[in-house]
Amino acid sequence: MGQHPAVLEAMKEAVDQYGAGAGGSRNIGGTNHYHVSLEKELSALHGKDDALLFTSGYTANDGALSVIAGRMEGCVVFSDALNHASIIDGLRHSGAQKRIFRHNDTAHLEELLAAADPDAPKLIVAESVYSMNGDIAPLAEIADIAKRHGAMTFLDEVHAVGMYGPQGAGIAAREGLADRFTVIMGTLAKGFGTNGGYIAGPAEVIEAVRMFSRSFIFTTAMPPAVAAAALAAVRHLRSSEAERERLWANAQLMHRLLKERRIPFISDLTHIVSVLVRNEALCKRMSTALLERHGIYVQAINSPSVRAGGEILRVAPGAVHSTSEVEMFVKALDQVWEELGGPARTPKCGRAMRSTGLGKGGARHVDLA
Amino acid sequence: MGQHPAVLEAMKEAVDQYGAGAGGSRNIGGTNHYHVSLEKELSALHGKDDALLFTSGYTANDGALSVIAGRMEGCVVFSDALNHASIIDGLRHSGAQKRIFRHNDTAHLEELLAAADPDAPKLIVAESVYSMNGDIAPLAEIADIAKRHGAMTFLDEVHAVGMYGPQGAGIAAREGLADRFTVIMGTLAKGFGTNGGYIAGPAEVIEAVRMFSRSFIFTTAMPPAVAAAALAAVRHLRSSEAERERLWANAQLMHRLLKERRIPFISDLTHIVSVLVRNEALCKRMSTALLERHGIYVQAINSPSVRAGGEILRVAPGAVHSTSEVEMFVKALDQVWEELGGPARTPKCGRAMRSTGLGKGGARHVDLA
Repeated sequence: MGQHPAVLEAMKEAVDQYGAGAGGSRNIGGTNHYHVSLEKELSALHGKDDALLFTSGYTANDGALSVIAGRMEGCVVFSDALNHASIIDGLRHSGAQKRIFRHNDTAHLEELLAAADPDAPKLIVAESVYSMNGDIAPLAEIADIAKRHGAMTFLDEVHAVGMYGPQGAGIAAREGLADRFTVIMGTLAKGFGTNGGYIAGPAEVIEAVRMFSRSFIFTTAMPPAVAAAALAAVRHLRSSEAERERLWANAQLMHRLLKERRIPFISDLTHIVSVLVRNEALCKRMSTALLERHGIYVQAINSPSVRAGGEILRVAPGAVHSTSEVEMFVKALDQVWEELGGPARTPKCGRAMRSTGLGKGGARHVDLA
Repeated sequence: MGQHPAVLEAMKEAVDQYGAGAGGSRNIGGTNHYHVSLEKELSALHGKDDALLFTSGYTANDGALSVIAGRMEGCVVFSDALNHASIIDGLRHSGAQKRIFRHNDTAHLEELLAAADPDAPKLIVAESVYSMNGDIAPLAEIADIAKRHGAMTFLDEVHAVGMYGPQGAGIAAREGLADRFTVIMGTLAKGFGTNGGYIAGPAEVIEAVRMFSRSFIFTTAMPPAVAAAALAAVRHLRSSEAERERLWANAQLMHRLLKERRIPFISDLTHIVSVLVRNEALCKRMSTALLERHGIYVQAINSPSVRAGGEILRVAPGAVHSTSEVEMFVKALDQVWEELGGPARTPKCGRAMRSTGLGKGGARHVDLA
């Protein structure tokens, strides 16, 4: 969407109309028509009362969680072990008690909830699509558990909004569960191709965050032109399925081709295809070889974004890639894998990825057989 | 600068060239030619080795201070009482020990430094222009004190860059002191009219922040078009004095006219003219009356941006205001002051503003006589 003509046109028009910057913080002169329209569009997208824009996903998680977890007296937070740094920071800044459940492990989540004070306010924080694994949280189970224990839920859909679900509303919406999550958090910088982050949720929660979030209050609003571009992107992806269909077709093709060549990757549930290299130096060499010999840029992901020994080439086919580009990439990767001595290929049958020791969630992780 | 044709043109050209968003974090595919050029321009502006961009001033202070203060083992930080929320948050997140010195009170600063462990690494954090008072820190004294006690210095020039000093390099540069401050922090969202924040400083400090700052690492880079716009603004204000001359002429005119009408304001040292109303309800009524009866938008600033009882109408004449607009504003304010019963006018002679109890620094505060 960052290259979509409607988005670029909206951005340039807003530059002409309103200038380069917002000129102030949201509460002090910086709120523009486009900020308000975008917040309305986002609350409609997620079927929530209201939404609140931040200048980034990082500050959205930081600002929202520090208020939501921090302002509920005695709140205990239950947070997935693989939650993003911005969630970790928001929770740390909230000062609330925190319990970490093993990645996507609902039995562990339930166990921790059962052990907590039944009268304490509770908040469960998870992502729908995990950025480094490309796997998906068991949302229905999390929603059920939250209900049983009277917990609020905060769902980060950063890697899903625009890309999954009806109108691009995300994974929870795709599974008919959006109304069972109190707050949905998203970004405008990935699927929507622009910049900024947001939360959508009940009016009173949004109002509390608007009132108290320091990363919302003490910063210049996003440029009206960026809000206008994001608005055009959200509107387009609410009304068009074509991009999501292309994205998913490319993701499935890549999953299939990698499996055929028995190149190990973590999950086939999303477009985030994390090819397991497990060695920092080798990962960098592969990335360099792909660029220099094949003209393909793939980012090597090392610590601290993944744990040491969990190094990956993180591949994300997009809606604008052609079938032959996906094929060409897998062929090039296969060749580099052979030349540089990539780790053992996946066995021809049977072993599930849980044996890799990368997170839990075996049943949901792809069986590479 | 947010309306300057060269800035708007640069922004729109970059939209055409690179699209709406950066497409990734700085370390993972999101770095663009314009980010690098802008960092070079900013380090040159401040005469420092290197510079680092953040998506906002808030995240620049938060991200830089949490690393600089947090990664120096046993660091003790000395922070002005009126430092901005983003500085407070960065220092809090650093976990470092903190001593607060009374606003612009160098005797107090020296006292606190003398009481600290002589062997502990020390960091002094101040702003050059204070956002709610419009006054200026005693930079030469702070630099001398820092030198005596072997302290690093971090100077927030958010309300000065682009607007003061040679090439718009800020107050420290204007006073020939830029090289005596270790790190200079600035914004692209005020004088430069666009969006984003930055630090400039020694290579090793910038590198440490680049390596460890979570608000730098875990966020999408600013849109290339915003960086392009900011670059155009910085380049323009480095080569043109006209805007600074107009800004200062308008500021001085406003100071003189307010004094003539004996309307109290905090400082005549900068373009930030904080008219003292000291009452939240009255402040809002005055703001509304100015808008509805005179078509002038002036923001009422209430708690938590200022302390309760310190409510102000915060006025900032710009380079694009005409002389008659400044005159019209003061006339309108005078009329509203009369009609709504503003607080007592300033006496005709002698009393310095320190008697208002708003911060210390009497000698530097304007004598409204």
